[in-house]
Amino acid sequence: MARRSGPGRRGGGRAGNVERRAIAGIAQMPWRLPQNCDRPTEPLDGDGIEAIHDGAMRILEEIGIAILNAEALEIYREAGCLIDGNVVRMGRDFVMEMVGKAPDRFTLTPRNPDRAIEIGGRTILFGNVSSPPNYWDMEIGRKVSGTREQCRNLLKLTQYFNCIHFAGGYPVEPVDIHAGIRHLDVLHDKLTLCDKVVHAYSLGAERVEDVMEMVRIAGGLSHEDFEAMPRMYTNINSTSPLKHDEPMLDGWMRMARRGQACVVTPFTLAGAMAPVTMAGAVAQSLAEGLSAIALAQYIRPGCPCVIGTFTSNVDMKSGAPAFGTPEYMRATQMTGQMARFYGLPLRASGVCAANVPDGQAMWETSNSLWSAVQSGTHMVYHAAGWLEGGLIASPEKFVMDCEVLQQIQRYLEPEVFATRPENIALDAIAEVGQSGHFFGIQHTQDRYETAFYQPFLSDWKNYEAWELAGGVWTAERAHRTFKEILAEFEAPPMDAAIAEELAAFVARRKREGGAPTDF
Amino acid sequence: MARRSGPGRRGGGRAGNVERRAIAGIAQMPWRLPQNCDRPTEPLDGDGIEAIHDGAMRILEEIGIAILNAEALEIYREAGCLIDGNVVRMGRDFVMEMVGKAPDRFTLTPRNPDRAIEIGGRTILFGNVSSPPNYWDMEIGRKVSGTREQCRNLLKLTQYFNCIHFAGGYPVEPVDIHAGIRHLDVLHDKLTLCDKVVHAYSLGAERVEDVMEMVRIAGGLSHEDFEAMPRMYTNINSTSPLKHDEPMLDGWMRMARRGQACVVTPFTLAGAMAPVTMAGAVAQSLAEGLSAIALAQYIRPGCPCVIGTFTSNVDMKSGAPAFGTPEYMRATQMTGQMARFYGLPLRASGVCAANVPDGQAMWETSNSLWSAVQSGTHMVYHAAGWLEGGLIASPEKFVMDCEVLQQIQRYLEPEVFATRPENIALDAIAEVGQSGHFFGIQHTQDRYETAFYQPFLSDWKNYEAWELAGGVWTAERAHRTFKEILAEFEAPPMDAAIAEELAAFVARRKREGGAPTDF
Repeated sequence: MARRSGPGRRGGGRAGNVERRAIAGIAQMPWRLPQNCDRPTEPLDGDGIEAIHDGAMRILEEIGIAILNAEALEIYREAGCLIDGNVVRMGRDFVMEMVGKAPDRFTLTPRNPDRAIEIGGRTILFGNVSSPPNYWDMEIGRKVSGTREQCRNLLKLTQYFNCIHFAGGYPVEPVDIHAGIRHLDVLHDKLTLCDKVVHAYSLGAERVEDVMEMVRIAGGLSHEDFEAMPRMYTNINSTSPLKHDEPMLDGWMRMARRGQACVVTPFTLAGAMAPVTMAGAVAQSLAEGLSAIALAQYIRPGCPCVIGTFTSNVDMKSGAPAFGTPEYMRATQMTGQMARFYGLPLRASGVCAANVPDGQAMWETSNSLWSAVQSGTHMVYHAAGWLEGGLIASPEKFVMDCEVLQQIQRYLEPEVFATRPENIALDAIAEVGQSGHFFGIQHTQDRYETAFYQPFLSDWKNYEAWELAGGVWTAERAHRTFKEILAEFEAPPMDAAIAEELAAFVARRKREGGAPTDF
Repeated sequence: MARRSGPGRRGGGRAGNVERRAIAGIAQMPWRLPQNCDRPTEPLDGDGIEAIHDGAMRILEEIGIAILNAEALEIYREAGCLIDGNVVRMGRDFVMEMVGKAPDRFTLTPRNPDRAIEIGGRTILFGNVSSPPNYWDMEIGRKVSGTREQCRNLLKLTQYFNCIHFAGGYPVEPVDIHAGIRHLDVLHDKLTLCDKVVHAYSLGAERVEDVMEMVRIAGGLSHEDFEAMPRMYTNINSTSPLKHDEPMLDGWMRMARRGQACVVTPFTLAGAMAPVTMAGAVAQSLAEGLSAIALAQYIRPGCPCVIGTFTSNVDMKSGAPAFGTPEYMRATQMTGQMARFYGLPLRASGVCAANVPDGQAMWETSNSLWSAVQSGTHMVYHAAGWLEGGLIASPEKFVMDCEVLQQIQRYLEPEVFATRPENIALDAIAEVGQSGHFFGIQHTQDRYETAFYQPFLSDWKNYEAWELAGGVWTAERAHRTFKEILAEFEAPPMDAAIAEELAAFVARRKREGGAPTDF
């Protein structure tokens, strides 16, 4: 099960280099698309599902969503929705008809077709942390503004780990790059350092169009080929409560028109931007998400859409967001039931409120990741590297999270709980009898190399051996692993002509001034 | 939901003292018996259940269990089992008939009847770490042999936390007390510092009888009253593979005869003491457990029995035990299915291989605790305080685990996912509309104090506020909480005459030499 190699390396050949890698590298599980074989945990009964659905529909019918994008407003009007100022009210028949056009599964194909991922069905996929403005690592030891170098390093981790299936937004915001050209530099880094599915921020027409063009170039695709299937995705957040803003909807519609994947994730913090009661926060989140999906389906029926959940609660003492809480877990599970009710793929997240990669960080993240599994989530955002409620990206946390992600992926392998006669192993039990042990017998020898999950970060030594090895706590071990990965990282191959075209595009768009900024 | 008071305190009255407590104390959830409302996660289909059951039965029928206790051997013989030396083979009809006599739920009533706990049904209960020979805390900073003082401190935590429902074995082995009288001193500590259900080690006739007598005295019970219902429990481990040793069976039979609760937990490490394949390890574990339960039921039909699982895997590189692994989780879930098949309550554990209370400790422990929830476990042993595969007890880990346990217990409250009209909160959503927020509205004001889980250890401050408060990592915060709890701890009340009788019993048994030791 464990394999001593990163993905996407250039083929071997240089024996010395291969040897070096084998020493420096970590044993990680191979690239795969894990299948979630567990029956989801479903807190809602049929009446509960109906109550939340009816709530979401009544929000859309009676209260309405503010649409701050004139073009979108016209489309809703054309579709027969009621418009009052910028507030759109839409009937459940229209919403359900549109939502019914969205596929329940689709494939995203990045520049390396071997990295294509299916969104939907039983597949559960994980992406890196996205969008923190700040960075923390053990060496710096404090919170600092993000830089391009840190962003590049986190992209290398994104590419390196096989348990990470897609790249999210910027793994840290590189604020040392001017905002007008940031998308050009980061996407160039992302598309050259990674060959996995990438994301475009919906932050203005130029950014979205530039990123689509770069993805097209990196894939060596014609415009027609680019649009022939989903190659990338965007994620928009509504401005809760009940509002979609101008640039988000602009990007959303541009992506939909070109058949690219559209993920909508309301950020409904119960008690702040949503009701203090979790079922109400979920209903509001669904109303916000479904209104955007109805728009996309009206524009391009059948375009790939994903409904996201980011419903959590605030700390009622301080108003600060809390993550990985019991309420967060149940909201995720409830949204999973509703996503299946609507026949839509689901996005959830790996999250925590902790400020450093310590015990709290891992119980909060574990809570959120297990709730993603339990809810039948298809895309797990922020699954590695997130701290401080998404305000900090940390490479140590990234590495620690990947250890947990590998364990989840191993957990989902049916072989772990297979019950064929060779698994019941009556002959082996008879052979060992009432004394002796199983270490040496053939049944064990035939299987021991792949029988169990093999961690790359967990330290299973006893205390004395652990102490002798320096008594290193997990976060510090993760820091070392991070440095090892950087030292051995090799970017995935890219055709020289494509690399040149991509660089030329970036240079030209920079000369043209990039995207407008309002500061 | 959060309440500023520990349980079992003497009533208030001294205002100054109450005030001090309110400052020093932590906000914890009230004592309750959590009901597991989730449908279990069930990796096995019907054929899988049948395959494991058939495997367990064939182990008992064809391979047999070594019974190293002459009295037990005679009882199996009398019951019609086949005896060959000390190996007992028993037919599935006999085993299933006996197992069918065990109740699927029962109540354990300790000296404080308000602390009675139901084992079985939907109830999930948690106990403290048991039996580590060593101790670690942040102040000492290294692994040391256990002492009575450390043991007493961990018993205070056991009593203090409402999320801990029963006391396990010694929370750390106090090796500074001579083994012959250790049970007398620790049980005296346990019965005076705690009023929760307690446990007796099955380590020789004198120890079991002494502990039963002390529990009887502490409860102010006649011998008849003591035996009228289960007051306490023992836990025995088979000597895997396929062996029950002399003192364990002796204690088991003594407890069964007096109608006290009997928990049997084979320690089947796949690849070492059990097959390298998890289904085989589970089948062997069940065979070992069911053979003991059949014995108890033959001796006293209907006596309360619990089947335990401790099936994990070894690290195949070192042979060291691993805990909280994907394989561990699936084994626990599989055993849960089998426990329901046999109609027996289930015991599982909170476990980790980590040596210190860091990130690894918490992802491994989270994995094991969530698998306990998912498997429908009724008694979760070692749920707080365990490190190094059970070789170390740590008060910081104890406090951290209790934070996770509270979150699990909150997660299980149906109110979190209630869908009544007031939860859907359509009026509140209409009131706030497309702008503003939910902080100030009446719907929020009416609910905010109890709407969300309130942690006592998780730090939800933003980075700057956290840094300003000292930038304290979780384990260090847990250490401070541990010290605060010790400072404010008050033992539960005990009638003076009972306390005197208990002390006199201990003194007399010490004069008599306690229990024999072979060293």
